[in-house]
Amino acid sequence: MTTPDHPFDSAIALRHSGDGLYAGHTSEHYWNAISPFGGTTVATLLQALLTHPQRLGDPLALTVNFAGPIRQGEFTIRVHVARTGRSTQHWQMEIRQAGDEQPAATGTAVFALRRDTWSDTEARLPAAAGPYALPRYDPPAKVPFLQRYDIRYADCDPLAGGDDSTTQCWISDVPPRPLDFPAIAAYCDTFVPRLFVRKGAARPISTVTLSINFHVDGGALARRRGCRAFGQARANAFNGGYYDQEGKLWAEDGTLLATTHQLVWFRE
Amino acid sequence: MTTPDHPFDSAIALRHSGDGLYAGHTSEHYWNAISPFGGTTVATLLQALLTHPQRLGDPLALTVNFAGPIRQGEFTIRVHVARTGRSTQHWQMEIRQAGDEQPAATGTAVFALRRDTWSDTEARLPAAAGPYALPRYDPPAKVPFLQRYDIRYADCDPLAGGDDSTTQCWISDVPPRPLDFPAIAAYCDTFVPRLFVRKGAARPISTVTLSINFHVDGGALARRRGCRAFGQARANAFNGGYYDQEGKLWAEDGTLLATTHQLVWFRE
Repeated sequence: MTTPDHPFDSAIALRHSGDGLYAGHTSEHYWNAISPFGGTTVATLLQALLTHPQRLGDPLALTVNFAGPIRQGEFTIRVHVARTGRSTQHWQMEIRQAGDEQPAATGTAVFALRRDTWSDTEARLPAAAGPYALPRYDPPAKVPFLQRYDIRYADCDPLAGGDDSTTQCWISDVPPRPLDFPAIAAYCDTFVPRLFVRKGAARPISTVTLSINFHVDGGALARRRGCRAFGQARANAFNGGYYDQEGKLWAEDGTLLATTHQLVWFRE
Repeated sequence: MTTPDHPFDSAIALRHSGDGLYAGHTSEHYWNAISPFGGTTVATLLQALLTHPQRLGDPLALTVNFAGPIRQGEFTIRVHVARTGRSTQHWQMEIRQAGDEQPAATGTAVFALRRDTWSDTEARLPAAAGPYALPRYDPPAKVPFLQRYDIRYADCDPLAGGDDSTTQCWISDVPPRPLDFPAIAAYCDTFVPRLFVRKGAARPISTVTLSINFHVDGGALARRRGCRAFGQARANAFNGGYYDQEGKLWAEDGTLLATTHQLVWFRE
């Protein structure tokens, strides 16, 4: 299945002008309330690295810091190889928009060549109803990017409120699209904000920083079938205007795709 | 309790020469087998930010990428404010040594002003024996930095081998030292490598990248008593020469101090 005209591919499309400079444009399809969906921003930064001629191996880890607002329109990504070793490669990256003195986002990433070793997954795919037995969630907020994801909660109404922020859901693109690294990166930011889960309603929130650890390589990802991931997310603590979110993503066959962590600013 | 001559304070001591440039020196007390203990490296980068005249608030999140070897001797830290907002501040940082064209470490950090809000901790301090009822662990490897930490395993021999890499332990400095942000950052890297836990023996490993989310502010930290933290760590997956480690650190009174995640290169 190839989807060259999928809105996600258009959203993360970049024009490389050399020297690690890439030009992109925000997508109306992945717009959030007042800014782009953060998952698209992370995926677009990753896309710059994936298409860079000096890239070594596959993404292993990535941190993106959301330093300031991104307006609708053009943006520039600048990426830079800090160091390339035998099996790992370290990148620095940022996003800027014309007229701004300061970057809108900064980040680092590590790419790596994996090799054949002993392997084991301790974080197993939770037992849950399959996606086809569950209804697609109809989010109360009608922001554009939420229309681009089919989310099916396995065990809960995510806005029921309560003492435990854990949610589990199936996630897929609308329309369906194979799971590649940019898709996985974006999925890592599709979890309903943990504050909404606890409070049972939307509140002002803004992701400050997001990290992803990838647990598959490109070869394993290409051999997989299915366009859905199973996601589990929870918060460890809410304190002083900030809370965290930890998430895990598995493929339908149980492969652990990624684990992710973010810190979020909030207002009650 | 003040400990101006504690070896940890000497290890993270820096000389600021202005323009975000700091000079430091590796510590023989916190040396590992062939490189400095990574926790000291992370704590030293954090120390540069904590003592920077432009610092806003307290550390919220930090990612350090171990890009290349650090040799015994002098090193230079360069930190740079990427953007300061009303309540958050984004930093970029790196470590270099004389004669090297490429940085030995890169990273980013977010500092923030916390404010009074609803708060709740979902990740509770696990029920476990108190530190005084447990023996100090005597690690088989006699590398210097392990002598600087008093680790008391709550429920296991960490090198027993098995299918679950989870360990729980009390951690404190030797000699005791109050828990501040640099200490917490270093504690995040004191967990016995998950591969050793699974294989029941030491193997070649090297941390590639480490992230920390802080859940306390400086005021709350200063009001705390006790010099010990309780740590819990586990791996999600071992695959293709890399594995991850997730950890949590609590104060003795149950305050969640930090959550941490790292990716580690390994050889079987």
